[in-house]
Amino acid sequence: MYSFKNDYSDGGHPLILQALVETSAFQTEGYGEDRFTAEAVEILKKAMQRQDADIHFLSGGTLTNLTALSAFLRPHEAVISAHSGHIYVHETGSVEATGHKVFPVATEDGKLRPEHIRSVVEEHHFEHMVKPKLVYLSQSTEIGTIYSRREVKALRDICNELNLYMYMDGARLSYALTSTENDLTLPEIAEFFDAFYIGGTKCGALFGEALAIMNEDLKPEFRYIMKQRGGILAKGRLLAIQFLTLFRDGLFFKLGENGNRLAGKLQKGILDLGYKVQFESSTNQIFPIFPENTILELEKKFQFYRWEKLEDNTSSVRLICSWMTGEKYVDEFIRVLGSFSNAD
Amino acid sequence: MYSFKNDYSDGGHPLILQALVETSAFQTEGYGEDRFTAEAVEILKKAMQRQDADIHFLSGGTLTNLTALSAFLRPHEAVISAHSGHIYVHETGSVEATGHKVFPVATEDGKLRPEHIRSVVEEHHFEHMVKPKLVYLSQSTEIGTIYSRREVKALRDICNELNLYMYMDGARLSYALTSTENDLTLPEIAEFFDAFYIGGTKCGALFGEALAIMNEDLKPEFRYIMKQRGGILAKGRLLAIQFLTLFRDGLFFKLGENGNRLAGKLQKGILDLGYKVQFESSTNQIFPIFPENTILELEKKFQFYRWEKLEDNTSSVRLICSWMTGEKYVDEFIRVLGSFSNAD
Amino acid sequence: MYSFKNDYSDGGHPLILQALVETSAFQTEGYGEDRFTAEAVEILKKAMQRQDADIHFLSGGTLTNLTALSAFLRPHEAVISAHSGHIYVHETGSVEATGHKVFPVATEDGKLRPEHIRSVVEEHHFEHMVKPKLVYLSQSTEIGTIYSRREVKALRDICNELNLYMYMDGARLSYALTSTENDLTLPEIAEFFDAFYIGGTKCGALFGEALAIMNEDLKPEFRYIMKQRGGILAKGRLLAIQFLTLFRDGLFFKLGENGNRLAGKLQKGILDLGYKVQFESSTNQIFPIFPENTILELEKKFQFYRWEKLEDNTSSVRLICSWMTGEKYVDEFIRVLGSFSNAD
Amino acid sequence: MYSFKNDYSDGGHPLILQALVETSAFQTEGYGEDRFTAEAVEILKKAMQRQDADIHFLSGGTLTNLTALSAFLRPHEAVISAHSGHIYVHETGSVEATGHKVFPVATEDGKLRPEHIRSVVEEHHFEHMVKPKLVYLSQSTEIGTIYSRREVKALRDICNELNLYMYMDGARLSYALTSTENDLTLPEIAEFFDAFYIGGTKCGALFGEALAIMNEDLKPEFRYIMKQRGGILAKGRLLAIQFLTLFRDGLFFKLGENGNRLAGKLQKGILDLGYKVQFESSTNQIFPIFPENTILELEKKFQFYRWEKLEDNTSSVRLICSWMTGEKYVDEFIRVLGSFSNAD
Repeated sequence: MYSFKNDYSDGGHPLILQALVETSAFQTEGYGEDRFTAEAVEILKKAMQRQDADIHFLSGGTLTNLTALSAFLRPHEAVISAHSGHIYVHETGSVEATGHKVFPVATEDGKLRPEHIRSVVEEHHFEHMVKPKLVYLSQSTEIGTIYSRREVKALRDICNELNLYMYMDGARLSYALTSTENDLTLPEIAEFFDAFYIGGTKCGALFGEALAIMNEDLKPEFRYIMKQRGGILAKGRLLAIQFLTLFRDGLFFKLGENGNRLAGKLQKGILDLGYKVQFESSTNQIFPIFPENTILELEKKFQFYRWEKLEDNTSSVRLICSWMTGEKYVDEFIRVLGSFSNAD
Repeated sequence: MYSFKNDYSDGGHPLILQALVETSAFQTEGYGEDRFTAEAVEILKKAMQRQDADIHFLSGGTLTNLTALSAFLRPHEAVISAHSGHIYVHETGSVEATGHKVFPVATEDGKLRPEHIRSVVEEHHFEHMVKPKLVYLSQSTEIGTIYSRREVKALRDICNELNLYMYMDGARLSYALTSTENDLTLPEIAEFFDAFYIGGTKCGALFGEALAIMNEDLKPEFRYIMKQRGGILAKGRLLAIQFLTLFRDGLFFKLGENGNRLAGKLQKGILDLGYKVQFESSTNQIFPIFPENTILELEKKFQFYRWEKLEDNTSSVRLICSWMTGEKYVDEFIRVLGSFSNAD
Repeated sequence: MYSFKNDYSDGGHPLILQALVETSAFQTEGYGEDRFTAEAVEILKKAMQRQDADIHFLSGGTLTNLTALSAFLRPHEAVISAHSGHIYVHETGSVEATGHKVFPVATEDGKLRPEHIRSVVEEHHFEHMVKPKLVYLSQSTEIGTIYSRREVKALRDICNELNLYMYMDGARLSYALTSTENDLTLPEIAEFFDAFYIGGTKCGALFGEALAIMNEDLKPEFRYIMKQRGGILAKGRLLAIQFLTLFRDGLFFKLGENGNRLAGKLQKGILDLGYKVQFESSTNQIFPIFPENTILELEKKFQFYRWEKLEDNTSSVRLICSWMTGEKYVDEFIRVLGSFSNAD
Repeated sequence: MYSFKNDYSDGGHPLILQALVETSAFQTEGYGEDRFTAEAVEILKKAMQRQDADIHFLSGGTLTNLTALSAFLRPHEAVISAHSGHIYVHETGSVEATGHKVFPVATEDGKLRPEHIRSVVEEHHFEHMVKPKLVYLSQSTEIGTIYSRREVKALRDICNELNLYMYMDGARLSYALTSTENDLTLPEIAEFFDAFYIGGTKCGALFGEALAIMNEDLKPEFRYIMKQRGGILAKGRLLAIQFLTLFRDGLFFKLGENGNRLAGKLQKGILDLGYKVQFESSTNQIFPIFPENTILELEKKFQFYRWEKLEDNTSSVRLICSWMTGEKYVDEFIRVLGSFSNAD
């Protein structure tokens, strides 16, 4: 049964596997001190047009987030996140486990706005409260929306004003950067954010994320903390080889486009059949609303997550198209859904 | 230049890469809830003859150690380790970073003995001191030695008497289990230890360790803490597929034997040339002692770590043979070393 | 200028100072292993009618909360608190600093209800989320309200159903227990809660809180963690002597009554002059609403905290009467306020 | 039975109790924002001749140490301590509980030397190991010895060279400063150390320590972390009033002298009777060696701690004279001991 559950349901892109196979017999230094890592760092610096970027490869998103945030913050400093932010909801309190409070902001569309930041900072005005110091946002967000260049700029401005770090969780950055609505480039991201990571796991890699630290204050001795959190892989080259493959000929962007294009087609097909969506997404996650009996029928043919119970016995569901999704499954979904509608 | 520095200098075994390639196109559930993980768990349970083992796959040794130990201990409980133990020396204080003191015991051969344990526990007798609760040992040890069945049994007895957990870091367990001096089986290890991990990274896997929790008290909700520490890989199947390959036809043991056999040959060759070794090793790490000028010459032809400065202008070095080491490099090393001796 | 800011603006009750003076020349064991501590433990056990209570004295509320909660919870377990809960707002993330997420629930009156608890637990249903394990509530709450016996019973029932601990922050327990609306006794509190503390600092003591652990599972080795957090006072007797004085002849309750009676008189006087209050309080904190110019005038004569900006250019303020407050200041406040009204 | 066990067996000095009584009825701000605290800060700045000192009052030594060290260090930074250091042995791993390794150095006399520091730093040379960053020492040490001005200067020099912080645990600083062997002044201590605390608990105060932060880099936002660790007392004035009393007319030094003078008399008396001491102490802790049967007899008349079993059925014991010790007990001890000798 085909699954629209996730963008990590598949293995890795064939070119990535091929690269791992081809390089496997070479001896290298361990712990990311090898030539593949040096090359991958260079290719990423070039992609973000910043020779001063401090780049580290880690094996997963939660590990990257908790390592980076605990390295950047003093004990009393806290994180501001959307209520729907991955670190607030779905990482088992990993940031709190390193000692830092994560302060949630309720939002409709998963996106933080300058007034949220100002309000949280103003509320926390003295030493009996934590000190908000880092703004965490996801691009694309957990509900498929993206920040525009203007929106990110406005957040950067208030972070400058209030002396806050700005950090981006880019688990699905490939889909954000290749959305038809996107107007933000990777070099601009490198300008705006103090640190961010480029997600490999959800875009063709077997596993791996590339953390880029841009703010000079946050760079010193990061690898100590990375090792302390278990984040330095013995065969660090494995991560580098995957990112080299993703960025050498633009594979990363092509794979992102595939997910977006098919999710777009799927969403359009669903809307054309008269259904609605819960959130406006231009990336690879879509959130259509179906009646309960339609969902039950769909579940016989496809795997996907139910998202939220809504009124009138309907619910939203989450459908994800990935770098790997085949068009035929999208067509099939629309066809199956159409057959129910006809039957009504 | 050939490197004897590490057993993680190479990529992965061809069969492992092949298995990853062959399974890559299959969709599965994420986070280790897939059928490959279920199969790998079964094959490991069978190998340890314990259907009740609670088995988890993580991507590296430091991450495994810190996740397990922080899950097992209450805040005031501490770890007893040999002074040379990997967690005490080489993991950037990762266990302390989770809040637990690691108490070091000086040993000659890297091995803890019952009297060490008793002495530490007796010293820590009241609430102004941490409470030693877990004995950490490595098999093989960081200097290539191994615990015999009798030695492990004696440690188990004192741990029972003093109500301590016993944990094994099995980063190099493949080499320990296949040492010619070994008399301890995997099922016996599963009997003696409360928890232990089987290292994949240093024995043919690209990456990955298999943690087995045997003590019922330590099993509940372990995956919560694993997720909190960033230890649940999104594509958990990657780890499972590698362990399936390692354990399906005994590959894990064959690879261990290769490292031991060649290290043994290398050590014998060195001894035959009249040199001495710092530690008696029967596994894949050996520690010969050379004069400074010999080391300088060897460094022109091979990579390896200097270990310790000794008297008379000599030093020990560490030479590692791995699952991947080719016999010709061993022969070459002996030949080169022999040529120096002749020249003297 | 008289201050209605706090119930910790004064020193200690004369009887407490006298007791400290009288006992000062006696030598005792340190760290709470003295006879005064033994006596104080007995008198508190008697007051709560529970010989099995495990009682510890600490020097302040934040230290008590963070020590208790970090001792009771495993790393992935989280706390449920009202959004206005002291640990969530005003302890600089002290609980998160020990690694545990505090999950906030928005409430109107500062009180948690069973449906809140159920909802939070149902939301957190799997290992990618923290596991709610402890319900934290304050009695009286941070806005002066109190839980009735029926309300606490209902919370206990759902905690039993959902296997949660229930913990009470009793910084102002003296005022709760002596409220005219209270129907909950100290022995009942000892029945309902897994652990709670009786606040001394805000009720006549110089400093000190008495933590009572009732649940057997939470008692073992608590003093280790107390020492680890810096919570065992060298001269533990100082805390014990104060609690002995507070509980020997019911002083604790008399002092609570004083605060409540005067706060009630103050609130009635304010209401009689035609003003409103933001929250319905029956304890020693009241929250009247005044126009801005009235507040500015009052600030010339009295100290107090502004609480919240409301509509129509009014704000609520917080006025606290304590164990020490003299009636004349209350009368004076009403007189001054009345003079403004007359002037309008 | 008179106790020589501790310097915290008594209550507080009469002048301190009197000051607390006299100021008790005054209302002040809470949390150390009161005028007594401001005054106490001034008097201490004057005593250390440093207007730039950042001074904080906390209620105990363990709490002071853990708060300071966790505020000063980044997550991967570690502490160097003598093996006998209080934080290493007797604070239940409180520093490790905040995430930092404490590295022990074996010493004969409880004192760190430059070569110890250099050796630890050289051993820890890369990111797989913690980074030593702070040198912790106690003055007087846990075995009664003191650092001379020259010794402290040498440690400061190496700390400068290796970019380390230097921190002094001054739980017994009063006894160190008034030792007949001392040549180090409080202003010099303020010059040499990045931070240190002046102990009140063991020198006449009921409780309380005064932490002085001298290094500008370590000052910002310290009170946030102090609050987070439960270290800001609600009635902060209590601590200030005690330090005001101790430092207004040199009481602190007079009390220290009393302990030293009597310990010196006690030690001389014991030596004159032909016994030996384990450590050379010039402060208020002495460590005579007695045969087992002598100890058993002494235990019938006095309380004290056994320290260490030595050869020939002898043990050392620890005898402490404090700010409060009466000369008659010292005379009595010598008389009793002398009577045994006569009886032999």
